[in-house]
Parts: sequence; structure tokens; C-alpha cells
Amino acid sequence: MFEKILDLTTQIKQQGPLVLNITNYVTMDFVANGLLSIGASPVMSHEPEEIQDLIAIASVVVINPGTLDENFVHLCEAACKAANQLNKPLILDPVGVGASSYRTAVSKKLISDYQIAIIRGNASEIMALAGLPLTTKGVDSNAGTAHAVASAKALAAQGSTVLISGAVDVVVNAEHEQGFSRGSAMMPMITGTGCLLSAVVAAFHAVQADAFAAASAAALFYSVCGENAAAQSSGPGSFKTKFLDSLYATPEASHYAKN
Amino acid sequence: MFEKILDLTTQIKQQGPLVLNITNYVTMDFVANGLLSIGASPVMSHEPEEIQDLIAIASVVVINPGTLDENFVHLCEAACKAANQLNKPLILDPVGVGASSYRTAVSKKLISDYQIAIIRGNASEIMALAGLPLTTKGVDSNAGTAHAVASAKALAAQGSTVLISGAVDVVVNAEHEQGFSRGSAMMPMITGTGCLLSAVVAAFHAVQADAFAAASAAALFYSVCGENAAAQSSGPGSFKTKFLDSLYATPEASHYAKN
Amino acid sequence: MFEKILDLTTQIKQQGPLVLNITNYVTMDFVANGLLSIGASPVMSHEPEEIQDLIAIASVVVINPGTLDENFVHLCEAACKAANQLNKPLILDPVGVGASSYRTAVSKKLISDYQIAIIRGNASEIMALAGLPLTTKGVDSNAGTAHAVASAKALAAQGSTVLISGAVDVVVNAEHEQGFSRGSAMMPMITGTGCLLSAVVAAFHAVQADAFAAASAAALFYSVCGENAAAQSSGPGSFKTKFLDSLYATPEASHYAKN
Repeated sequence: MFEKILDLTTQIKQQGPLVLNITNYVTMDFVANGLLSIGASPVMSHEPEEIQDLIAIASVVVINPGTLDENFVHLCEAACKAANQLNKPLILDPVGVGASSYRTAVSKKLISDYQIAIIRGNASEIMALAGLPLTTKGVDSNAGTAHAVASAKALAAQGSTVLISGAVDVVVNAEHEQGFSRGSAMMPMITGTGCLLSAVVAAFHAVQADAFAAASAAALFYSVCGENAAAQSSGPGSFKTKFLDSLYATPEASHYAKN
Repeated sequence: MFEKILDLTTQIKQQGPLVLNITNYVTMDFVANGLLSIGASPVMSHEPEEIQDLIAIASVVVINPGTLDENFVHLCEAACKAANQLNKPLILDPVGVGASSYRTAVSKKLISDYQIAIIRGNASEIMALAGLPLTTKGVDSNAGTAHAVASAKALAAQGSTVLISGAVDVVVNAEHEQGFSRGSAMMPMITGTGCLLSAVVAAFHAVQADAFAAASAAALFYSVCGENAAAQSSGPGSFKTKFLDSLYATPEASHYAKN
Repeated sequence: MFEKILDLTTQIKQQGPLVLNITNYVTMDFVANGLLSIGASPVMSHEPEEIQDLIAIASVVVINPGTLDENFVHLCEAACKAANQLNKPLILDPVGVGASSYRTAVSKKLISDYQIAIIRGNASEIMALAGLPLTTKGVDSNAGTAHAVASAKALAAQGSTVLISGAVDVVVNAEHEQGFSRGSAMMPMITGTGCLLSAVVAAFHAVQADAFAAASAAALFYSVCGENAAAQSSGPGSFKTKFLDSLYATPEASHYAKN
């Protein structure tokens, strides 16, 4: 798998795929910088009038309703519709689903109405999205992951690949399931690591048509970059700086071999 | 006081209080990262429909109308109303009050209509908010602080604790006043240090019910983190990085003793 | 020219000109931090009601429709009108013009209806803005720059100074043309380097009334800061940090002499 990842990161640098982000205001800067660091070409938009034009030139579209309001929801729907019509893959990041019933309803409607190639969320978001019974407090992480995998499989039955990210990353589609136990505890200490992962998954999918393979490669690549950054940092500030440097440098083959 | 601060920072890390930020677009990323660095759990929202849900699960609510428009003002009012009803403390950051009459009117209306636990602003914002005669140009900083303290006392008479931040930080409530002369000249060289201070004050208030004690502890903690970061930095870029690292590390007891 | 630049950066630090940014959400934080680093005083706004007040106290106004929607376009028009009335210079950053017909139309209307002191864009944005025949793919950079210079001259004939930024920066007005081949390949690896350059040009114009001289000095200063930062960085993350540090330190006279 390592060689495949090295090949995909090289292709991203060579092709510079245009990733259109319909995304939240909090982490836009980090997402844009992370995409630039791996060699992809980010564009952000909030204007329905230009969505059609931008999707036409984009390789892939990320929908991230992290700071949503009514206009933003209409924008997401217009973008999903256009992306499906133009056969541009959609990546959905259901940020904060479960935290408010509004957020949950918005993301559920998107996956019901449109064809989503890959859904990327943390365990509680995936569980809330699948609507399975949820125990958010006091759940140990193994039980949490097991619950989330069942939820991911329910979502995958509708045709999406699902990436559950966390201490353990799990990728699920209708037939397969793959898990990785990599990354760093520093990753959730900065805002936007989830958002950027969704965007990186999108960039990988732009050069790897198989959604399951793209999500798996992106997740492992991202976690190893996190490990490399954590090894050089002394807190969340320096971690963020080194993480962008690590995305840019891309890990060497040896970094993928677990110590 | 040092032991008390160490105790509060430990409690924040253990409890991870959810801090809801109704905040401006410019500094959202920095505020979120700063809250994560001290162990709090940030959430940002701009959607009236989910405010009630989010306030219900939040420990404390920060109102920061830094980039305000009509929708944002309605959102602030809805959030203040819900927070008062649900007994969740409100922290107000009157960003840029005095710079435009619109901003001044918006923040004045909020403090008149709702119960604000803590107001955090710089000297000129606090003076503009209190509506006392203002001389913004050519005022030396001591005179500025003295003027601002009188303004803060006028605001505190309505029940809020007021934190004036600057080269000297002063905390005022109806009965008490406390000042600190700590921090670094680098702090105003990066955008959002004021916004993040307000959010850090909120996180402290989540674990320290006494607003005056919470604001005092947060202000001193924050200034000492600023000193620690400045000692390791060579400009605003590296200062920002090191400041987040310092918030994460939390100062040692010895750092609070002024050299 | 070096002495003149040193003089201008000193004046910016001494006067702290207020730069009003009507700007996009993605790069607001970076633009604000960059302006603070050089000693200017940034303010951002999205509210028509306060635009008049803020322009009255600002030295210069930057219009950057990077994440535009209908409200934002109205805001830009109101800001341009007020700035022209109050004789505050306007700097236009036509972000992404050419990527969607909506963006192109918005920026074209602004330059047609209002007096713009300086337009700052990359080669493809300047070409799209001028409406000259455009070949975006496979163009080598020399041909690209030559095309863009013809476009810049067409725009300059309407009274603006035009700064085309890229590997080669070219400044054009109705009579003059000046080019610089400085900077670092790291600069386009972080989001907002173009946006911040426009804001830095604005700060220089606040202390240098001649638009051509201001744009030339700002462009060279900015590129040399980029070189200094790249020399100390190991990727886009550390480059961003060091770039802000370099803007703050300001280059020494010797750095302007090309090695």
C-alpha cells in the first residue's frame, strides 16, 4: 500500500487537482493551506451564482456544513445537485452532526437526496448520521468505534464509502472494511484536522477513482504526516506549523512501516 | 492566587467545558485553536435555528460582534436571550465599539437588554461602551487606563464583571478592583489576542463560578503565557505559534512570580 | 529605491495607517496579521451600515471579493462609492476573476463605475479583467507575463496603477512599467499571499501618495520578505510563520541587493 500512496501523492503534485470547498468559515484558511501543501489547488465559494461554473472546472467537491445557516444549506444543495449532474465526486463532512438537530437534519437530507462518494466524520458524527442509538458519554473508545462501524455500514449500504476518523481510522464500503491505528494525539488539539482530512481525501479521490482505495490511502497518509509533525513539535501551535510542513514533504516509505 | 490558577487550568483540561462562540469571522480559527490548547471544547455557530440546542449543551457563551451585520445582530440577541433563560453565563467582547456608531449601538443594546456575566474589552472599547467622554488620540496609557476604570465601574454597577485588557489588565466589579501589569508587547501584534482572551475568560468561568475570580485568573494566566511565548519568538509569526504552545503547556508556578 | 522602501516601512510603523478591508473570509486572519506585522492597523467589515464611519477614519480601502455573494457585492459597491466621495484611495484585488463569469462581471463593474487607485492581481486575473483573449493552459510564464502586461496597460489607460504579481512582478501605469524578479516559490504555497500583498500595497499607498511608487516599493519589499522567510523555513507551515516574522523585522538594505 505504501508504494500506492507515494504514487498518489506524486500524482496530486503533478496534476494539482482543483478541489472546490463549500465549507465552514472557521477552518477555511487551514483547509486551503493543507490542500496547497500537498499540491492540490483549493477554491472556496459561498455564491450560488458561480457554483455551476466552479464545479465545471473542479475535479472534486467537498461539502462541509460546519458553520451552516439557511443560505449555506441552499448552497450545499445546489452544489450537490450540480456535482451529481456533472459527475464530479462529492465528499461530505457532516461536521457537528448530533450537536444540534438542525445540523443532523441537513446532513441526513444531503445523503438522502444526492449521491455522495465519500463521507468522512468522527465516530459520533457517523453514528448520529446513521441514526442508530447513540451513547455519547462514558463510552470507551473501542465500543465507540464498534458502534460507529455498524453505523458506517448502514450508510455504506446506500452506496457511499465512509471514513470514520479518530485514534483508529476505519474505512467502510458495502463490501470492505479496513482500519488503521496511526496518527498522533496532537491531531485533535488543533481545529480543522477533520475538515482538512476530508479535503485531502477529496484530493486523493481526484487521482484515484476507487473511493475506498482513495479514502484508505488518504487516511493513512494523513495519520503518518501527523506522527511526523508531532515528533517535531512542542504543543498545538508548533504542531500545526509542522503538520503543514509534513504534508508538503510527504512521508518517506519507511515512515509507513509501523515502529 | 498562583495555586488557584493552576487548579483552574487543571479543571479545564479535565472537564473540557464546551464554549459556544457567536463570534467574528476574522479570528475564529485562532479562538478555536486557543480554546483547544487549554483543553476547552470550542463550538462556533451562526445559525439561529440551532442556537437553542447548542446553548443547552454549552457551559458558557461568548458573544463577539467583531464582523457584524444585521443577521449577526439578530443571532446575538437570540443567543443572549436563550443563555439568560438557560442560566448559561454570557461573556461579551465589544470588538471595535467606538469605531462605528453601529457597533457601539449593538453592544450597548446587548448590555442593556441581557444579563452579561463578564465584559472584556480594551480601554477604548470599555470607555465607548460606558459612553463616558472619550479622548482617543494623544492620551498616555496611564490616563487611558484611569478613564477606562471609571467606565468599567459604571458598567459594573449594572451587575457585570469588567475586564479591561492592555499593557495593564484591570478587573472590576461592583465592589472590587484588581490590576496586573504583565504580558508582552507582542500580544497586540497578532490579530485575535483580545477575542481569544474573552474565550479563555469564558472557559475559566465555566470551572470557576465567581466571575471576578475567573476573569482575574484568566487574565493573569493569559499574560504569563504571552510572556513565555515572547521569550521564545522572533516576531509575530513565531509568537503566535509559541503562544498556542504556551497555552497548552500552561505556565509553571514560578512563572507567575514577577521577575 | 532601497532607501525609499526603508523610509516607507518606517513611516508605516510610525503612523500605523488604518487599512479597511472589505475582504474574503478565507484569508482574513492572515491579512490582518500581515498588516499588524508591518505596523499598519487593519479593520475588517461586512456591514453596510458602518462602512461610511469606517471609511471616514481609514487611510485606504482594500476591496477583495474572494468569497463573494450578493450582499458582499452590494457592500463592495457601497464602499467604493463612499471611498471615492471621501477621497480615500481604493485598492482592488480581483480574486479568482476568470474562474467564474460572476466574479469577472463583479470586478469589471467595479473598475468601470469607480476610480481605483491600484489593481493587484496575478497574470490570469489581470488578463481576464482586461477581457483580452486568454489562454490559461500550457502558457509558459514568460508569454503569460507578456500577455498580462498588455492587459495591465489596457486597464492602466483608465487611470489605475496595475500590479501583476507572480514569479515576476510588473507594475504598470499609463506612462511607466517596472518589473522585479524576486521572491520565493514558497509564496504561492500558502493561501492569501496575494490578498496580503494587496493589503500591504494599500498600507504603502497610505504613506506614499504616488500609486506607482507605492505599488513598486510594496512589491519589492514583499518579495524580499518572502526570500528571507524561505531561507529559514522547511515547508509552507514554517514559511508562513517566518514570513510574518520577516514582514515584522523588515529587510535590511543589503537584502534588496540581488545576490
